Amino acid sequence: MVKSQLAFQPPVKDYLAVARQVAQSLAETAVARDRSADLPHQEVRLLKESGLLLLPVPRHYGGVGATWPETYRALQTIAHAEGSTAQLYANHISLVALAEVMGRPGQAEFYYRLTAERNLFWANALNGRDARLHITPVDNHFRLNGVKSFGTGMAVADMRVIGAKQAGIDPPIVCVLPSDRDGIVYNDDWQNMGQRCTASGSYRFQNVFVQAEELMGPPPLPDSALPTLIFLIAQLAKTYTYLGLAEGALQAAKNYTATQTRPWIDAGVDRATHDPYILKHYGELWTQLQAAIALSDQAAAKVQAGWQQGLALTFEERGDIAIAVSAAKAFVTQVGLAICNRMFEVMGARATAAHYGYDRYWRDLRTFTLHDPVDYKFKAVGDWLLNGQYPLASQYS
Amino acid sequence: MVKSQLAFQPPVKDYLAVARQVAQSLAETAVARDRSADLPHQEVRLLKESGLLLLPVPRHYGGVGATWPETYRALQTIAHAEGSTAQLYANHISLVALAEVMGRPGQAEFYYRLTAERNLFWANALNGRDARLHITPVDNHFRLNGVKSFGTGMAVADMRVIGAKQAGIDPPIVCVLPSDRDGIVYNDDWQNMGQRCTASGSYRFQNVFVQAEELMGPPPLPDSALPTLIFLIAQLAKTYTYLGLAEGALQAAKNYTATQTRPWIDAGVDRATHDPYILKHYGELWTQLQAAIALSDQAAAKVQAGWQQGLALTFEERGDIAIAVSAAKAFVTQVGLAICNRMFEVMGARATAAHYGYDRYWRDLRTFTLHDPVDYKFKAVGDWLLNGQYPLASQYS
Amino acid sequence: MVKSQLAFQPPVKDYLAVARQVAQSLAETAVARDRSADLPHQEVRLLKESGLLLLPVPRHYGGVGATWPETYRALQTIAHAEGSTAQLYANHISLVALAEVMGRPGQAEFYYRLTAERNLFWANALNGRDARLHITPVDNHFRLNGVKSFGTGMAVADMRVIGAKQAGIDPPIVCVLPSDRDGIVYNDDWQNMGQRCTASGSYRFQNVFVQAEELMGPPPLPDSALPTLIFLIAQLAKTYTYLGLAEGALQAAKNYTATQTRPWIDAGVDRATHDPYILKHYGELWTQLQAAIALSDQAAAKVQAGWQQGLALTFEERGDIAIAVSAAKAFVTQVGLAICNRMFEVMGARATAAHYGYDRYWRDLRTFTLHDPVDYKFKAVGDWLLNGQYPLASQYS
Amino acid sequence: MVKSQLAFQPPVKDYLAVARQVAQSLAETAVARDRSADLPHQEVRLLKESGLLLLPVPRHYGGVGATWPETYRALQTIAHAEGSTAQLYANHISLVALAEVMGRPGQAEFYYRLTAERNLFWANALNGRDARLHITPVDNHFRLNGVKSFGTGMAVADMRVIGAKQAGIDPPIVCVLPSDRDGIVYNDDWQNMGQRCTASGSYRFQNVFVQAEELMGPPPLPDSALPTLIFLIAQLAKTYTYLGLAEGALQAAKNYTATQTRPWIDAGVDRATHDPYILKHYGELWTQLQAAIALSDQAAAKVQAGWQQGLALTFEERGDIAIAVSAAKAFVTQVGLAICNRMFEVMGARATAAHYGYDRYWRDLRTFTLHDPVDYKFKAVGDWLLNGQYPLASQYS
Repeated sequence: MVKSQLAFQPPVKDYLAVARQVAQSLAETAVARDRSADLPHQEVRLLKESGLLLLPVPRHYGGVGATWPETYRALQTIAHAEGSTAQLYANHISLVALAEVMGRPGQAEFYYRLTAERNLFWANALNGRDARLHITPVDNHFRLNGVKSFGTGMAVADMRVIGAKQAGIDPPIVCVLPSDRDGIVYNDDWQNMGQRCTASGSYRFQNVFVQAEELMGPPPLPDSALPTLIFLIAQLAKTYTYLGLAEGALQAAKNYTATQTRPWIDAGVDRATHDPYILKHYGELWTQLQAAIALSDQAAAKVQAGWQQGLALTFEERGDIAIAVSAAKAFVTQVGLAICNRMFEVMGARATAAHYGYDRYWRDLRTFTLHDPVDYKFKAVGDWLLNGQYPLASQYS
Repeated sequence: MVKSQLAFQPPVKDYLAVARQVAQSLAETAVARDRSADLPHQEVRLLKESGLLLLPVPRHYGGVGATWPETYRALQTIAHAEGSTAQLYANHISLVALAEVMGRPGQAEFYYRLTAERNLFWANALNGRDARLHITPVDNHFRLNGVKSFGTGMAVADMRVIGAKQAGIDPPIVCVLPSDRDGIVYNDDWQNMGQRCTASGSYRFQNVFVQAEELMGPPPLPDSALPTLIFLIAQLAKTYTYLGLAEGALQAAKNYTATQTRPWIDAGVDRATHDPYILKHYGELWTQLQAAIALSDQAAAKVQAGWQQGLALTFEERGDIAIAVSAAKAFVTQVGLAICNRMFEVMGARATAAHYGYDRYWRDLRTFTLHDPVDYKFKAVGDWLLNGQYPLASQYS
Repeated sequence: MVKSQLAFQPPVKDYLAVARQVAQSLAETAVARDRSADLPHQEVRLLKESGLLLLPVPRHYGGVGATWPETYRALQTIAHAEGSTAQLYANHISLVALAEVMGRPGQAEFYYRLTAERNLFWANALNGRDARLHITPVDNHFRLNGVKSFGTGMAVADMRVIGAKQAGIDPPIVCVLPSDRDGIVYNDDWQNMGQRCTASGSYRFQNVFVQAEELMGPPPLPDSALPTLIFLIAQLAKTYTYLGLAEGALQAAKNYTATQTRPWIDAGVDRATHDPYILKHYGELWTQLQAAIALSDQAAAKVQAGWQQGLALTFEERGDIAIAVSAAKAFVTQVGLAICNRMFEVMGARATAAHYGYDRYWRDLRTFTLHDPVDYKFKAVGDWLLNGQYPLASQYS
Repeated sequence: MVKSQLAFQPPVKDYLAVARQVAQSLAETAVARDRSADLPHQEVRLLKESGLLLLPVPRHYGGVGATWPETYRALQTIAHAEGSTAQLYANHISLVALAEVMGRPGQAEFYYRLTAERNLFWANALNGRDARLHITPVDNHFRLNGVKSFGTGMAVADMRVIGAKQAGIDPPIVCVLPSDRDGIVYNDDWQNMGQRCTASGSYRFQNVFVQAEELMGPPPLPDSALPTLIFLIAQLAKTYTYLGLAEGALQAAKNYTATQTRPWIDAGVDRATHDPYILKHYGELWTQLQAAIALSDQAAAKVQAGWQQGLALTFEERGDIAIAVSAAKAFVTQVGLAICNRMFEVMGARATAAHYGYDRYWRDLRTFTLHDPVDYKFKAVGDWLLNGQYPLASQYS
């Protein structure tokens, strides 16, 4: 259904123009795909053809070598169209970088090169709140058994990053498996009110073979702050997905109001675009969105600076980045929900017709922003401000 | 799909208990009906069997003779389950009373008795913003030609109240037609993001025959404030639909949080129901809901007092009622949207699974509250407060 | 400074008209008294002359016998003028009723009669968070030694209700002392940003003699829920003070906008009262205020019903009242602060001139609403809603 | 009262460190000066001794040559202490630059040099909404007669910029007069609830002599967009004053909570800084403040870019700057008021003691943000977004 006319010539040059093309292509079919909620084969194909999968891969390994702010901007642009493909891309860019911070020496280069050569799409089933997947050492290899929920996009991914529990070891073991590995069964049970095309269902693992080399890490300096920087990179990727969705929603609303909305009978104006209340709503929502973008961009600059520190990244520096990312994520969530909810007030009743599908912005954002609670983001910021306490490094902070 | 085990024995006694039964029956199939969006045949049958259609019909004409506050409470209760059937009922109760305020002498009694005897369901296509339906006098009768949008529930109604434009006459002509009248074609084009089971599509009228007796009115005292009281009755019916939806949403959320929500990993509590932020959210939303109910109940008491004034109702008295109804409608809208949006934050990510269908509260409320803009409701209240100006009597105020 | 032309003829008949007169008299000098912050001798004299001190005293003991909703309405009306005198009155009405719920048999009648005969004004230093005042049994009497903060209005009161700690006994001991009792020294140290005329400073107690009869209680049924109902009565008295302040602020703003505010240069209207944004602000604030009043009135009706239960009041019933009062107090706080803050936006820059003194509404309300935190009010409501838990009876709930 | 230990050695080097010193010196006496509201002689002396008056004066004319973002940051820092001195400084930096955009050739250099040589402080009475001051040509000079309100700081200024109406000419005539010019009488009538030390009272002008050279302009390219850029520079100066006030308030609150606030009795924590609600409030307010700073900094960068365009500045470019400044000003206003209001909720009741003077943040900000209405700022942004319409260049946009 997704039209793809992009002839991919790596490395992509004007990544933002390409991202806009991707977004436009996705937008044309967004309503239909939201309805059918099929596996995102076409969406991933589109991402592949665009060349954007290689944005975070360093240039000397065959990638684009974009900075995090640049990569996030491409992500934000894709999210203008819809949230599902954007979430797939958000996960991908974090996972591609995983080995650089958590890998053992050589692992980053290996995966970067592999990804660039074959234009690979990455996905994961890492969800740390679900401990039902077990990994067991057997001779010189490992075996996976159990189930795992929220395997977003794995059904259509080339590379699958999986977190499992090994008896007697506290932090989860992370391994990277190719898509053709036997014994991994997708339950195809993702039926959701939003982010419907992410294929975020659950998986069964039946005696899945894992080579020792397929285990991620350990990193050379296990007590550096760098490995857990990946969580902040991923949190900010979510943030930019929210931002893009909100921006897309406001843009869609604006187009509708400018062309479709009729002035209210008591407004005393000839066009809806002259209604004083509609103008104020737009002014307020746009202003909040700019503030959200500005705050996110500051966080992205900090992520990039931390990234460039490499293994020298201190826990204090990581803590400062965590605060910036937490603040941005919570703020963007509030602003985005306000836009996706209030956009209807500036469009009017007829904008609720199903064929416009404008409710998908709210459904997508409402769903995805529940990933981890805003309350605890703000609490973490307050704890740092009042008590100088940095958040514990975790998947969420 | 809707189960109906109600054996209707008019007049209904404990109308609230019956309304709760109706709501429960509707709730069991609400998610499925929201998805299929069929014509609401079963829903109307359920309302008929419940006896609640006769709540506003005076006792001496064979009805229940409930007051407006009582009738609204029944409506609010039905809306706990979903918004579509509640909207059908909200329209019905206003239309049943139409002849009492707008009818010529005898007309109210005629329609009340007919409704009570045959347990009739009323619906309308009155939308004053759509002037494309024309009525033309021909000999001693009239003919309808044209189209009309938003004919909510007419496809399954016994009595159809239709507004049309007669050349040279300013206010729209209102007529009441039986469901078997020839020449009225439903386009079955209601596909919407919310209020999906209201059959609110458009109609074509092809040379439809209308008897002179089928015209509503004129009322005996054309410059009494009573006739336009019907608009306030209808506006408050919308308000109670919103209220019921919001209350149903909060109740559903509460049940989910109490049984399904897992405590957040950083919360340091053993149950989600002990999380300080979740508790505060619930406290705040519940408090706002109670304020919304209290404000609506005050407006309902005023509507009832105005109703009992009959033709003696002055324009000042009507104006005061209009202000109370406008304030309640705008306030309930804000509170209801906050509940339907924030309910997800106290349930968590897994509550977005499609089988729960919790997004339908927001979709229903978001859709229905766009009927007329909140901004202009508050403006009207301010205009009265500052300038002593009452809103012009219209379908919206 | 306060003009008093009220000739007090007990029992007062039209208590609301009297309260309005008191408010008007207070309003005329409110700005000047806010500035000088003298001891409220004149204010208490005005209250005495008005007869309103006897509102809660039963008719058969020489009082007015007003219900709680009536008494609260009088309080709300007084608060239109300013917060300090209203707080003095709010405390008085709770303290006058203290013996009825906490007293031993006969004590209520004694204090009611005494109050009615001599038109006494009551005040207190009960603050349970300050445990620095000690009471010691000596022979057949007691001695008070130590200090106590927040002795609101005691410096000008006839009857002083004092809470002190007795070694080995957990709940504080409450005693009632006349104003001429030796050894009580006011430190006259109340210098505050709001509620400036409440004389809420601290006291030293030097070997103060207390007769055994001057101890409050014990009540006949110590494990009835009735004694702690007084805390809810007092909490709701605070709520009605907030309400009155907010209502007075909105009224003052309205008068200013209608007569002084100039239309904004870009507004394209001839009068500020036609500015669409100003109208909407007023409509929204007034609507919220009505919701706040409606919610408070429901709580007042519950307090009255509980009061009439007398010693039969169960802990469940008290719990329900506590929830209603908590919800009202928190909601009124939010609405009131919004009004006192936003009123300037609808008046314009010149309304900040000191001679208007409009900032005193915000200063008074901001100060008084800090009495106990809104967060924990909402938490208590949520805890009841989710867990069926009633708040622990305390000075604050 | 203001202590000044700064030995001024122009040009100032580390301007931010100096601004922090100024702020600290002002903070020590802020409560007392807010109370006495004397003419700001000492405050202006402090500014002079700091060298900060010369920040916007180009280096080659003897000044510091700071960019606008740098100058605004110094202003924001001064505003941490209090709003009055910050407003004086905000006006000064705009007025010092006035001749560069509105002056005729040579005028900028003249005033820059004069200011640098004598370390002059500038103030104005330009208020365009007050047209009661008239300028009349007489022979080869002019005469001023009439009155003018809001002459902020002119009573203590070296250079006075005055706007007056000349018969038959539409835009106001602007002239620059020294402080010793005869016939200008300050009415010393500034008694306000906030910004109390700005000496913003009214003036009488009695046949005041004005030389032709003292008239500002005309600029060499009268239809360039540059001249009206000064209004945006001044609007953003106000914005940074708001920002600094809000930041100062949050910092003061944080210090109080960390050292003074007692944990609430129901909180179950040992320190107020561990209270979950207090932490969340701080996290939310700080996050909003960072968003406000980020948005303002973007506007400042745009102002600087526009400034560097000089006479080449197009009306479209100016329009874009106007939108950025309007959005920032409105957003900062909302965030700042939230901080100054809610800071009390995280400090608790005892923080209302008068000697802390914490209410001055709200009084200052509430007063100064009324300069021009937020509603119309958002409307202007919406009008640009929806209709591509730039705001009309005026004192306010």
